[in-house]
Order: sequence, then structure tokens, then C-alpha cells
Amino acid sequence: MTGPVLADSVRFAGDAVEILDRRVYPFEVRWVRCATSEDVALAIERMVTQSSGPLFAATAGMVLAAREARNEPPERAAERLRAAGARLVATRPTNNHIRDAVHAVLSATYPGGVERAGDELVAAVAAAAKAHDDAYRARSAALGGHAASLLPDGARVLTHCWADAYLIGTVRAAQQAGRRLEFVCTETRPYLQGARLTAATLVEMGYRPTLITDGMVAAALADGLADVALTAADRVTLDGHVINKVGTLGVALAANAFGVPFYALVDAPDPQAPTAADVVIERRDGDEVLHMLGRRTAADGVEGYYPAFDVTPPHLVTRIVTERGVFQPDHVKESL
Amino acid sequence: MTGPVLADSVRFAGDAVEILDRRVYPFEVRWVRCATSEDVALAIERMVTQSSGPLFAATAGMVLAAREARNEPPERAAERLRAAGARLVATRPTNNHIRDAVHAVLSATYPGGVERAGDELVAAVAAAAKAHDDAYRARSAALGGHAASLLPDGARVLTHCWADAYLIGTVRAAQQAGRRLEFVCTETRPYLQGARLTAATLVEMGYRPTLITDGMVAAALADGLADVALTAADRVTLDGHVINKVGTLGVALAANAFGVPFYALVDAPDPQAPTAADVVIERRDGDEVLHMLGRRTAADGVEGYYPAFDVTPPHLVTRIVTERGVFQPDHVKESL
Repeated sequence: MTGPVLADSVRFAGDAVEILDRRVYPFEVRWVRCATSEDVALAIERMVTQSSGPLFAATAGMVLAAREARNEPPERAAERLRAAGARLVATRPTNNHIRDAVHAVLSATYPGGVERAGDELVAAVAAAAKAHDDAYRARSAALGGHAASLLPDGARVLTHCWADAYLIGTVRAAQQAGRRLEFVCTETRPYLQGARLTAATLVEMGYRPTLITDGMVAAALADGLADVALTAADRVTLDGHVINKVGTLGVALAANAFGVPFYALVDAPDPQAPTAADVVIERRDGDEVLHMLGRRTAADGVEGYYPAFDVTPPHLVTRIVTERGVFQPDHVKESL
Repeated sequence: MTGPVLADSVRFAGDAVEILDRRVYPFEVRWVRCATSEDVALAIERMVTQSSGPLFAATAGMVLAAREARNEPPERAAERLRAAGARLVATRPTNNHIRDAVHAVLSATYPGGVERAGDELVAAVAAAAKAHDDAYRARSAALGGHAASLLPDGARVLTHCWADAYLIGTVRAAQQAGRRLEFVCTETRPYLQGARLTAATLVEMGYRPTLITDGMVAAALADGLADVALTAADRVTLDGHVINKVGTLGVALAANAFGVPFYALVDAPDPQAPTAADVVIERRDGDEVLHMLGRRTAADGVEGYYPAFDVTPPHLVTRIVTERGVFQPDHVKESL
């Protein structure tokens, strides 16, 4: 099945990895060529890809790292691979996809302390990378089926930012069940993931989304424009806090105020995060708030403040949907 | 006293009126020349000016209308003046500054059914226009004094959109009282009045504001970034509903959730609006949501939705500040 462009946005091309540049998509379809695992790390840091993209970029980066270590003896190769993994994990601290991907690839490559080198190492890493990618796609599809079960025929769905594989999985499952949906999308400043990525992908999947600015969420819900609010979560803690793109907390407050259910999608809660205090919230360069698509949008003499994520407490979350099913936030740890 | 540029953004220039183009300020300081009262109406419709700007544009537009009717007999001149007033009032339905300005100019020009024509008509309208402008400035200064009394020394103030004369009045009063303030401003999409007008004016007045995107309000208040939320109101109903730039409702919800007082500034509640159902909420062209500073920001195939204002219910409003003082929202009608 040919999916939306963003469903396959990291690809191997000869010796390199190419990552779709989500900073300019869909206005430009530009692929950033990464010749080394360090190039991949830089691309992630620079927001060439985001949402689920860094997961696929990280596994691909590990394959490049294995190729870079092909001629090293086993111990040195393993060192290099672990260093490349640590570099990838350090790129962005809030979402744990990268951490989990690197861990999964290393664990599958070195089961029980086995030693590997040369082509065997490269093949083992490539197989582990593909297995991790495939498993994530399968989890997203399962999650999508559970999420679709919450959306009645004709539901009007408010989205924030870009829920990537979770949203694609949800829409596919709803379509397979013959359910009609409509979408209202926030534009999601400063990177406009909603106006660009979510909107473009929903158009590819056959919808005509309604776009609002981030400040219009409360007005839209007060006006009855949407029946459901649905976002991804970059992280869900064991006690049901939802960490997601900044703005999600405002969506949840408005949904709560106007009686609209708020559903958060995550393949699984983070077993390493008992509560919100265990999650590092990434603060990005405030300068990004002062620009849009490269153009200055603010007066001189101001400073930008840019927390990339916010924390929505469990009492504002109606349900958390994981690959295992639909959970009340205070029971989400039972999904593990 | 030389004030910020935006404190004097409508001016007479020979036969014409010039209006500062707030769509591009401060990146460009461009004055739109209006040779006729119809030009003024078009400028208001096209958002050349906004916030308090349309009040001054409307009184100036009435002066142009009087000049256009200079050679008409009294009855015909009065008809033309009333038609020009109706045209100006029809430009934007939510804020009542224009309606009140036109009404004030006509009432002062024709006290007790007096007839006027020629230079006498022009002089009467010009005097009425100036009196209305001056009275508004005096009311804004009085309001600013009351608002400043709510801001303790060192207060960090969250603003949304551009509160224009009310904000300038508040800041001047706080400065005269020797109080230090800090500001956090939303950028206020789609027109970026916060990033451009509020930020530029606060910089002119000696501050270094922190800018956030509209989606960051809840995160900023949850993080303790501001002590007070302060916005203008385009209209306040007699029962204390605050109608203001879309996004204000989200600010109020977040302020309420995180224990931050929310103050709304308006020179007076609208005696013609008992409650929110009596206020027309302007819906602007959704295409404006799909662009920023003239550049397309959204994927093809989407539609924009653009309610220019939202309605904040009294239970989310801590105090309403008018020229008469500081009021609980359910007592604001006593300020009349």
C-alpha cells in the first residue's frame, strides 16, 4: 500500500540515509542526505525530522554507525556503535523513541555478549533496525485500531501538532471500519507542523481539514466545532501525565471546560518515568519563536521563550490510547 | 510628551487622512493615505488599523465626510454625513468604538436639530471629532491609572494581542508610580499584533518583552512565567462577559487553572449589550489563517476558520478595569 509521504520519510540511498526535511514540507519535498551517523544526529537536532521521524532516523543512524565500524575489531566496533547511539540519544531529551530505538538495536545486535564485526555486524544491526521499525509500525497500527474505536461515525476531530504514525494508523482504521471523520487542525507554531504536516497528510488521505491558529482552540471548542480532541504524546508517565508538543495543555484545558473528550495516543507509557518530574522538558532556542519559515515575525528588542513540550495532568486527560488498548490515565501503567 | 508611534497612528495631512499600516508595522513604517471617508472605511475593513485605531480613523473619516459635503445644502449634507457614518460602522461589527465615535460626532454636530452646511459644518464636525478623540485618550489614561494599581512592583504581566491606549495608559501610570514591570507577550496569530505592535511599543517604552507563541500560554502560566494576565476587551457586556481578540478565552482558562488573576481593560461596558448574545462576533476570511505576513503557511487543500474574537464568561474574569475603576465582572454595570 502506498501511504502518505510522511509515512515513509527516512530511506536508505546507497551509502547514505535520506531524511525528508519536515521543516519545509509540503512546500518543498527536500531530502537531507546523511552520509554518517553524526549527520543523522545533526539532522535530528536541527529538526529536519520530528514526531515519529527520529525513531526511524535513529535506527538508520545505527546502521550507518555499523558500516562506519565495519573494519574495526569487535570490541572497538561495539564501542563506536555505543558512542553513536549515545550521540543520537542526546539529540533531543523529551521523546523516548530515540533512546528506545538505540537500546533495541544494541540489545538485538549483541544478545548475551556475543562479539560481532565486519559484514556480520552490519547485517545484524540492519536486521535489528528493520525489526524495530517494523515493530513500531505494528504498534502504531494496533494503537490506531483502538483509537478509531473511540471515534463515532461523523466525528469531528481536533488535532494539535502532528501525531504521525499514530494518526495515520487511526485514520486507516476508521476508514477500514467505514467511519467518516472531519478534522480541525491547529497550525502549531513555531514550526507549523499542524498547518503543514497534519494538514498535508490528511489531504493525501482524502480529507479537507479546517485550520485554526493555536489561539483559537478554546473558541473552536466553545463554538462546538469539534467533538473530540486527539493528540499524540511524546511521553506518558506511569501516573498518567501526558507530555506532548507545547499547546497540548491548552487544548486539554479547553476540552475540559467545554465537555469535549481529550484522547492522547502513545504506543506505551514510559516505564522509566513514574511521574512528570522524571521527564526532561526540552527548551529550544527562543529565537525560533521570533521567526516563521525563516522570516522574522517579531519586533526587535524582544526575547523568545520556547518550551518545546508541556505537561498535561491526568485529570485533564479523558483516555490514553496505547497499542494495548484504551486506558484511564490513572490506570495506564497497567498497560505495560 | 512624545509617545510611542502607535499612540498617534491616525493623522491629517492636507486634504487627506493618513493611517499607520499596522499590518506591517514595525517592519515597515507605512502610512496609508485616505482621500475620502470611503477610503477610511476600506482601510478599517482591510485591517490597516485595529484596536483603538478605528476609533481615531472613524472620527477622521467623519471629518473627511463633512468636507465632501461642504457644498451641499444642510439636509443633503446631513444625509451624506449619516451615510458615511453608517458605512464606517458597518466595517467591523464587534468592537463598538466606531459606532460610538460616529454617534458622538453626529450628536455633537447636530445638537437639538440645528442645521449646518459649508465651512460651519466642517468646523463643527472637526471639533466634535477632536473632542471625542481627546475624551477617549482621557478615559484611557484614567483606566490606565486604575489598572496600574493592580500591578505590584516587579509584576510580570502576560499580554495577548495589543491593548493599545489602555496598555500605554497602564504602563505610563505604573512608571509614574515608580513600579517596575516585566512583560510576556503572545505573538497573536494570524496578524501577530503581539509580536509586532505590543512588543515594539513596550520596547519603545523601555522594556525587553518575552515573546511566546499563542499555544504556549498554558505552559508559561503553569511554569510560573507571569503573575498577572492583562488584556483589553473589545466589548464588555453588562453581565460581565469579555469579548476580545480570539485567544483571550484560552488565556483566561489557563490563568484560572494556574491561579493567575486575569484582568480585562475597557473604557466602559456596553450599555447596549446586556449579555454575550447581544454581541455580533466577527468572522473574518479564513484565508487569513493560511498566511502569515503575506506568505502561505498551510498545505493546499485546507480551509481556514477565523473567528476574530471570543467570549470569556464572567467566572473566568478576576476584575474588569474601566475609566471609573476596578470592578468584579458581575458588578461592572454599576460602573455606568
